[in-house]
Amino acid sequence: MPPRLPQGFRAAGVYSGVKRSATKLDLSLIVSDRPAVGVGVYTKNLVCAAPVKLDRERTPSESIRVVAINSGVANACTGAQGDADARQMAAWAAEACDAQEQQALVMSTGVIGTMLPMDKIQAGIRAAAAQLGSDEATLENAARGIMTTDTVPKIRGREVTIGGITTRVTGIAKGAAMIGPNMSTMLALVMTDAALTVGDAQAALVDAVDESFHCISVDGHMSTNDTVLLLANGAATASPSPLGGGGTPLSGKGLADFRATLLEVCEDLAQAIPADGEGATHLVTVEVHGCRTRQDALRIGKTIADSPLVKTAIAGADPNWGRIVSAAGYAGVPFDPSKVTLHLNGLLLYERGAPVDFDAATAAQSIAAERDTSIVLLLEEGTAAARFWTTDLTAEYVRLNADYHT
Amino acid sequence: MPPRLPQGFRAAGVYSGVKRSATKLDLSLIVSDRPAVGVGVYTKNLVCAAPVKLDRERTPSESIRVVAINSGVANACTGAQGDADARQMAAWAAEACDAQEQQALVMSTGVIGTMLPMDKIQAGIRAAAAQLGSDEATLENAARGIMTTDTVPKIRGREVTIGGITTRVTGIAKGAAMIGPNMSTMLALVMTDAALTVGDAQAALVDAVDESFHCISVDGHMSTNDTVLLLANGAATASPSPLGGGGTPLSGKGLADFRATLLEVCEDLAQAIPADGEGATHLVTVEVHGCRTRQDALRIGKTIADSPLVKTAIAGADPNWGRIVSAAGYAGVPFDPSKVTLHLNGLLLYERGAPVDFDAATAAQSIAAERDTSIVLLLEEGTAAARFWTTDLTAEYVRLNADYHT
Repeated sequence: MPPRLPQGFRAAGVYSGVKRSATKLDLSLIVSDRPAVGVGVYTKNLVCAAPVKLDRERTPSESIRVVAINSGVANACTGAQGDADARQMAAWAAEACDAQEQQALVMSTGVIGTMLPMDKIQAGIRAAAAQLGSDEATLENAARGIMTTDTVPKIRGREVTIGGITTRVTGIAKGAAMIGPNMSTMLALVMTDAALTVGDAQAALVDAVDESFHCISVDGHMSTNDTVLLLANGAATASPSPLGGGGTPLSGKGLADFRATLLEVCEDLAQAIPADGEGATHLVTVEVHGCRTRQDALRIGKTIADSPLVKTAIAGADPNWGRIVSAAGYAGVPFDPSKVTLHLNGLLLYERGAPVDFDAATAAQSIAAERDTSIVLLLEEGTAAARFWTTDLTAEYVRLNADYHT
Repeated sequence: MPPRLPQGFRAAGVYSGVKRSATKLDLSLIVSDRPAVGVGVYTKNLVCAAPVKLDRERTPSESIRVVAINSGVANACTGAQGDADARQMAAWAAEACDAQEQQALVMSTGVIGTMLPMDKIQAGIRAAAAQLGSDEATLENAARGIMTTDTVPKIRGREVTIGGITTRVTGIAKGAAMIGPNMSTMLALVMTDAALTVGDAQAALVDAVDESFHCISVDGHMSTNDTVLLLANGAATASPSPLGGGGTPLSGKGLADFRATLLEVCEDLAQAIPADGEGATHLVTVEVHGCRTRQDALRIGKTIADSPLVKTAIAGADPNWGRIVSAAGYAGVPFDPSKVTLHLNGLLLYERGAPVDFDAATAAQSIAAERDTSIVLLLEEGTAAARFWTTDLTAEYVRLNADYHT
């Protein structure tokens, strides 16, 4: 069963004219009928876009009502006018659902250095507001409205029963994968009808993002617009009236169960991004075990995942343990190289510092036959581990990213 | 005039059979007729090859006589047998020129995880010793014997007159550029007939490498075998007898002049590596100015140079300032993004935090028409600067690195 919106949320996606092709949607609205706790995790890039600046100012919040998202133009590197445009976009979104300006957030993705076509944005927000719905089709439209080079909309959701009450966690995302002609951006918006305090929501999102969206990499290029938002409106346990507040915030085991579900949804969304990499032929999962700290494991995993030599080897179905082991060696994490063991797709290639006599043809065949590739690196420094997802690197990726004016 | 060997050096390059193709040379000897000061700078990869371990043990030294270098097999990840093989290879090189074992160094590049074919290495060293010469042809053979995926031998040299005496600094290198089917490795050997103390030689090499070989990047993947050696035999100022010692070591202005020349030769060799990138169509020079420290400038330059999005844009002749500016933004160096200015091939694209209205067609044409691309990023944080060289990223690079068993 496809994921559904949590209670008290409505969504829409329309074509506003920001993108050139009228067959694509490019403007989405997500509305919570009652004020929702809203928290965000944002790009660490110093060169950040106007919508990121606005959302950073307005979150964490206890009263978010609406998020307006456009694709096609990122409103990044657009100076003071860009900041004003982001505020205006938020104001129109708030107006469209009878909210206060401060209750609206915005996200943008697309070309950078270009001003938003504000007339189209205004008309698009009005059109979207008129189409808000809570069925699967409108949710899918909202997910399509934020796509740039994605080939499929990314919607993931799970239900969790907390205190006998079914709570839903549903998210949409668009990918930094195999980045399009101008700018990669990873955007995600996760909605839940659970009731959370602002502090718990922020902590839960930071931890979930740390183990999901921060563990994916396509080309290591961090966008100006990357944003993950969480809206929690408490509708699952609230009184029926939209003005009745969000019920008692989760705590104890209920909160722990919610956090586990949020992490699962974030992992599902995060994996969907490299899995949809344009030009990519493999989703690569890099697991690193036996480190002193999780940070060490992440750093090694990211170094392997970012190595063009490792990524081209996977594209070529080459079980090239040397590239993997040597990438670990320059990650900047101290370890004993004579205690490194490597499995690829379950096959032992390298054991305690030396290559083993594996069947290269079988290993190559296992890469060629499957879209999923598993790299498992075992150290003997400690007990911490991490998992990282990436894609292979294909000639098609280069073609997509080298074409000018596409 | 092509560079010549400094006085007191002889060289040779032969086909020993390590490589499959008999049309390629694969074993080189460099001999100093008198004991030379020998210093090295080595890969920081924890997973380092047997020849790196051996050279690290034997340098700095005051009495190096010979360096044996093979291509085709890297002798990396080969365990205790690999360490013994490296020692044996050095012992044969020493024997071939009547030196002590401790006076020999070795370098290897090629496939990793494979044992050196020791019978071929032994015969090759003997054959090379019989062909040692000091003319340009033998120097070129030596440069060819260390090539893997390089398309041209890399020999660079300069002369500098110190105290009325002509001193020569000549180097050979092979490239980490557009790395071949198995493993990248950057090797360089610089020879001089200047007289240097061990300490001055080590300091001069570290500084020169820091501003040359450490400022190139092809794919950010650091090899297990990277090595730069400097041999200084003092023959320019020494007594005619090979036993007569190397003359008075340089100091003061003479030493400064030598260091400047060494840096120039290292820069020339370093640039030759990305310039010969297989699959590459552009040599990209990234200059970063106005930083607080040189380390900051280097870090930003390397982040831009390593970004696949920047590199594919150059391949596609796309003057994509957004990718360049946003790469700077995630380098981890604090700066004010509203004071960033960017020139590409001399054209102003971005000024103090905002894109300017440049002629995109002219900019694209300038990239398409020239093999050299210049990126100049100006910050306003300080006065430190750095220069970094890289290549573009083409579909051909991916093809070369994805092919299995080539």
